[in-house]
Amino acid sequence: MLPGSSIGQRLVLTSFGESHGRSIGAVLDGCPAGLEIDEKEIQEMLDLRKPGQNIISTQRKEGDVVEIVSGVFRGFTTGAPITMLIWNADQKSKDYENLKTKLRPGHSDYPAMMKYNQFNDHRGGGRFSGRLTATHVMGGAIARKLLKKTLGIKINSFTTQIGKIKMEKEFNEKMSKLIYKNEVRCPEEKTAKKMRESILDAKKKGDSLGGIIESISTNVPVGLGEPIFSSLESDLSKAIFSIPSVKGIEFGSGFRGSELFGSENNDLYAMKRGKIVTKTNNSGGILGGISNGMPITMRIAFKPASSIAQKQDTVDIKNKKDAILQVKGRHDPCVVPRAAPVVDSLVALTIADHALITGTIKPSL
Amino acid sequence: MLPGSSIGQRLVLTSFGESHGRSIGAVLDGCPAGLEIDEKEIQEMLDLRKPGQNIISTQRKEGDVVEIVSGVFRGFTTGAPITMLIWNADQKSKDYENLKTKLRPGHSDYPAMMKYNQFNDHRGGGRFSGRLTATHVMGGAIARKLLKKTLGIKINSFTTQIGKIKMEKEFNEKMSKLIYKNEVRCPEEKTAKKMRESILDAKKKGDSLGGIIESISTNVPVGLGEPIFSSLESDLSKAIFSIPSVKGIEFGSGFRGSELFGSENNDLYAMKRGKIVTKTNNSGGILGGISNGMPITMRIAFKPASSIAQKQDTVDIKNKKDAILQVKGRHDPCVVPRAAPVVDSLVALTIADHALITGTIKPSL
Amino acid sequence: MLPGSSIGQRLVLTSFGESHGRSIGAVLDGCPAGLEIDEKEIQEMLDLRKPGQNIISTQRKEGDVVEIVSGVFRGFTTGAPITMLIWNADQKSKDYENLKTKLRPGHSDYPAMMKYNQFNDHRGGGRFSGRLTATHVMGGAIARKLLKKTLGIKINSFTTQIGKIKMEKEFNEKMSKLIYKNEVRCPEEKTAKKMRESILDAKKKGDSLGGIIESISTNVPVGLGEPIFSSLESDLSKAIFSIPSVKGIEFGSGFRGSELFGSENNDLYAMKRGKIVTKTNNSGGILGGISNGMPITMRIAFKPASSIAQKQDTVDIKNKKDAILQVKGRHDPCVVPRAAPVVDSLVALTIADHALITGTIKPSL
Amino acid sequence: MLPGSSIGQRLVLTSFGESHGRSIGAVLDGCPAGLEIDEKEIQEMLDLRKPGQNIISTQRKEGDVVEIVSGVFRGFTTGAPITMLIWNADQKSKDYENLKTKLRPGHSDYPAMMKYNQFNDHRGGGRFSGRLTATHVMGGAIARKLLKKTLGIKINSFTTQIGKIKMEKEFNEKMSKLIYKNEVRCPEEKTAKKMRESILDAKKKGDSLGGIIESISTNVPVGLGEPIFSSLESDLSKAIFSIPSVKGIEFGSGFRGSELFGSENNDLYAMKRGKIVTKTNNSGGILGGISNGMPITMRIAFKPASSIAQKQDTVDIKNKKDAILQVKGRHDPCVVPRAAPVVDSLVALTIADHALITGTIKPSL
Repeated sequence: MLPGSSIGQRLVLTSFGESHGRSIGAVLDGCPAGLEIDEKEIQEMLDLRKPGQNIISTQRKEGDVVEIVSGVFRGFTTGAPITMLIWNADQKSKDYENLKTKLRPGHSDYPAMMKYNQFNDHRGGGRFSGRLTATHVMGGAIARKLLKKTLGIKINSFTTQIGKIKMEKEFNEKMSKLIYKNEVRCPEEKTAKKMRESILDAKKKGDSLGGIIESISTNVPVGLGEPIFSSLESDLSKAIFSIPSVKGIEFGSGFRGSELFGSENNDLYAMKRGKIVTKTNNSGGILGGISNGMPITMRIAFKPASSIAQKQDTVDIKNKKDAILQVKGRHDPCVVPRAAPVVDSLVALTIADHALITGTIKPSL
Repeated sequence: MLPGSSIGQRLVLTSFGESHGRSIGAVLDGCPAGLEIDEKEIQEMLDLRKPGQNIISTQRKEGDVVEIVSGVFRGFTTGAPITMLIWNADQKSKDYENLKTKLRPGHSDYPAMMKYNQFNDHRGGGRFSGRLTATHVMGGAIARKLLKKTLGIKINSFTTQIGKIKMEKEFNEKMSKLIYKNEVRCPEEKTAKKMRESILDAKKKGDSLGGIIESISTNVPVGLGEPIFSSLESDLSKAIFSIPSVKGIEFGSGFRGSELFGSENNDLYAMKRGKIVTKTNNSGGILGGISNGMPITMRIAFKPASSIAQKQDTVDIKNKKDAILQVKGRHDPCVVPRAAPVVDSLVALTIADHALITGTIKPSL
Repeated sequence: MLPGSSIGQRLVLTSFGESHGRSIGAVLDGCPAGLEIDEKEIQEMLDLRKPGQNIISTQRKEGDVVEIVSGVFRGFTTGAPITMLIWNADQKSKDYENLKTKLRPGHSDYPAMMKYNQFNDHRGGGRFSGRLTATHVMGGAIARKLLKKTLGIKINSFTTQIGKIKMEKEFNEKMSKLIYKNEVRCPEEKTAKKMRESILDAKKKGDSLGGIIESISTNVPVGLGEPIFSSLESDLSKAIFSIPSVKGIEFGSGFRGSELFGSENNDLYAMKRGKIVTKTNNSGGILGGISNGMPITMRIAFKPASSIAQKQDTVDIKNKKDAILQVKGRHDPCVVPRAAPVVDSLVALTIADHALITGTIKPSL
Repeated sequence: MLPGSSIGQRLVLTSFGESHGRSIGAVLDGCPAGLEIDEKEIQEMLDLRKPGQNIISTQRKEGDVVEIVSGVFRGFTTGAPITMLIWNADQKSKDYENLKTKLRPGHSDYPAMMKYNQFNDHRGGGRFSGRLTATHVMGGAIARKLLKKTLGIKINSFTTQIGKIKMEKEFNEKMSKLIYKNEVRCPEEKTAKKMRESILDAKKKGDSLGGIIESISTNVPVGLGEPIFSSLESDLSKAIFSIPSVKGIEFGSGFRGSELFGSENNDLYAMKRGKIVTKTNNSGGILGGISNGMPITMRIAFKPASSIAQKQDTVDIKNKKDAILQVKGRHDPCVVPRAAPVVDSLVALTIADHALITGTIKPSL
């Protein structure tokens, strides 16, 4: 949706804020009235996204105490837009964008400068920061609660792979409480240890790692999604690609399934306790762009973080000459663990949006 | 965009039609005035999508003669909405949807029936047919011409993998004229032969195959994409997932890149003949959601076609009992080759939309 | 909604066509499945709009036989987009737009030329023709039927004033069948005669007249309208101002009410047969932007038609010099009577849109 | 635009807040980067809207100190969303909505209760308050500055009529500085006095008055407006009807023009110092929905305020019985003077939106 700061059709999230501004926040419009919500619940989810809380990410302090400033009365949503915000700490010293003319490889610097046409247009720096994903989490926390309360939908997003280290077993519901028991948000303890080590290792080398987040939503009712162009896959992918560093998404058997035969990949129907289910779930819970009642599963590829300590060849945009860049400061060697609650949030927002579109969730609880 | 039949923000495609209707077609609104276009050019692209033109797909005759019924005057677009349509052949005999209550695995039958709430609601069958992609091609043909004429952008989408058979070499511009020289739309003759054989083989077995389409757009100007939520990756994926059978998308190094180190995946900047380029292109031409001038590359995963001749376990939705299904009729064992022009079209529509949003293309040529 | 050819949020009308194109038509997306509709019903409403059927308007023949080309199966809507079109008669002789550089006062010529930047850009002429309102009627005919069938809503739009000649009595439901009994669409026979004479008189003098259409919708349920910015008055006025020549709109007591005291203008509540009603209806059925159950009443001001036979001072845009213009051809001396079915249509489309938004009308009948 | 709290297409205002919430505010997305703006300028316009600053309106203290919390850096807009808000004073005592079951005539109570389905759903009270128009003024202040700086556009909205008392002379640019010299915002001193007296008189009687605001925008470039459905009149009226109490709008000669002959109402073109102008301006600066360069003029009808001290017949919604209501507290006997800056703001937002759509204003100053 133009101009680009909003997403959704019946449940609309508008994100605002940059590193330089006084605050970052979100307006969530279209949430039904009568949902019990308070700052504590939103804060919990925000805290899962924050860096500086473990040793594998940066020790940058972000503060991030959320305030609800509209749309909630006596602990219940009123149906009017809900505005939440976080105050940024004093930013005056962050003046480096002005001085840096060496393009940082893998970052948005170059295209943003060209698009916005100004060396010292801070919009580039401010609006592309991973910090902005906090706004998605603010709205997502409410959407998640709405889905849980009205439809019993649960969303579990977790780290399934870091670099080449993959989870060994398949996820099941019982593992959900293990996701946040470790820093990497991998519900397989043994694998989480290896992942942690590889991240620390990369950090020592001044390098970075990427990974894959898997997300599974259960109890999704049949019928969500509006073909042709607002199918569930279209809207989920549109939302997920707003997360910096995301470079790929697949649903169900995805790329792996493209190598199978139809006889191997088709999910056969069966009756199970009076309910229509499929024996396998290669469709990832979505057929023809519409949810079919099976868990909605997706895997999201994150490229390795672009800010590395090693020297890199680059160009100085001021004089158009080759140059060497060495990024200063301490940076996250791996953003994947922090993205898990962000994925949860965007999946929740998209599913809730579609549930409102179909009338599965009413405008008033 | 609700209700679901339109996509785009400045260049909007509205798709209409179903198998049962008299026609299928599209309205393209927002195309600048002064673009030279005629039915022949649109027909050429539509013909690339049609089945029945080679032996690896169904011999179903689709007719598909396109007519432009508004928006073009004396061979030039007027700036008003352009409506194009194809008349469906007489459909009266196609009455089987009424009788089929056995759910077809992998198809949209079940969720569509539940969503639209009617056994004999033909909307399900009619609006989910792959035939509907002809409407995307109608609009895409115009968008492609617009991009080529105003910005010199070229889009090449081709089959890079069928089942487990992959192209051996990397694509380069010289190979583009080879794409449509064979039925599988693979620009590597040797591999195309193997692919063709495997498809015929699957067909004999009453089975089906999936594959991967790769798409590369060159000459894309820097600066397209509107963060945060209308980034180029968000809008491209939203469009691509409207193609039936698509189950995954990745940009640049995608899922492979998620296993690399930052030092391996970052694209380093360099000057090349006075222009800023990157030495590698793992970003796929998009950084921070904005085009950076390098080719925009993506790979799209197609699941194997759901209609196979083999018997399949399923459920009869009328009496909620297990049943056996054997899909009659002749079906495409592999939809991937036919999807190449559809991918071209959706990529063109999305890039043109963003070029109009940024003002890179003016409303009047 | 950009780019400008569509209106609506859940029920979306996309209008296409110009004088020069082969056809004019509309795509109506979002209409629920299961509504019985055929070409005859749409034709009836179109015929009410056509000129050349009485002596007070132009004897231009428009043809206007509507075809439904998608979205209807066996006489029922399928829920998919409904496309309707009318083929234009051969337009090749209508080449005069190329030659006219003298600006026609009151027409869109000048701003359209400046906007679209071309003397011979036919878009101006083609897309501003009153003929385009036929597309609103196509969609409106379906919306009207939908409202009548699901909610029993009736919409009556009629000529209440031509020039200075006003209706004497207030409209009541019994008069509805008189609206189309005369050429001016005034349900008061005596007044209609005077109106007719004044129009013929103006025609003889080579001049034109304007007027006022009143529209009354009954049986509208309480609760339609989405504050703050999608209130019922906002959306109704947005739609109505798309009709060429409309220059004003008022709801309920409107401008007259602005001269009253609150004690005179407030509608007092009362119980009437167990239902909450108001004793007067100065609010025009809308309070706080939401329907309150009382009839929705509005009056719409139409300026006198701009094309008059008399000589007029003007400017020749080619050489920027003063000039004299005498518009040739026969033109409608008064467009008001023809606009009645167009007002009906736009009111129906807006109310139906809001009924779908609130869920008062379900997506499937 | 759904869900209802946002308006605009390239320049989007999202309004949030209710009486009960901690704050009311707005997010303005799409404002170009590089515009100099600060809280003081926004505060000035907000103060013009505040009650309690003169004796003809309520002595309710609203506070209303605005803070910009995002989108502005070192005094310049960054191009990212601009969020502004005002903190509400402690609202805990405002609990009366819970207790009032007698419907207030002329208010949104009844339809809002029915729409939102709850007696004690505070959304009704909170979101319909005239106080919410402060959010339109926040965004409008920025839009006004943008228009003035980039295109030299001036907008003057003033009270032209209160009850039956009308301005005697026509407005001209020199009178603009007189608008805010008196409490009623009428630039004709003599008339302003009479208006003031009639308002005080109505107040004594426990009654209220309505009126008409006229708005004139000069220096508007030719070519703004997107036919068919996003014409300038459509979008201006859509925005203006969001102001509580507005019941009518007319452009140019409006309803009066509907009584004229074409020969009287047509604006004849002429050359004036090398520029194309019209000798009269009955079109109100808009032809065919597009601006023609002449001043954009409109008149807006406000009904008399619904809250009056006199006893009124009504219904008690709890027991569906007739009742008598006497509204307590002190209320504005006339909202018209306070609405002038709100009209300014909504006109500015709409014109700026269209200027951005056409590219007349660039995304970066």
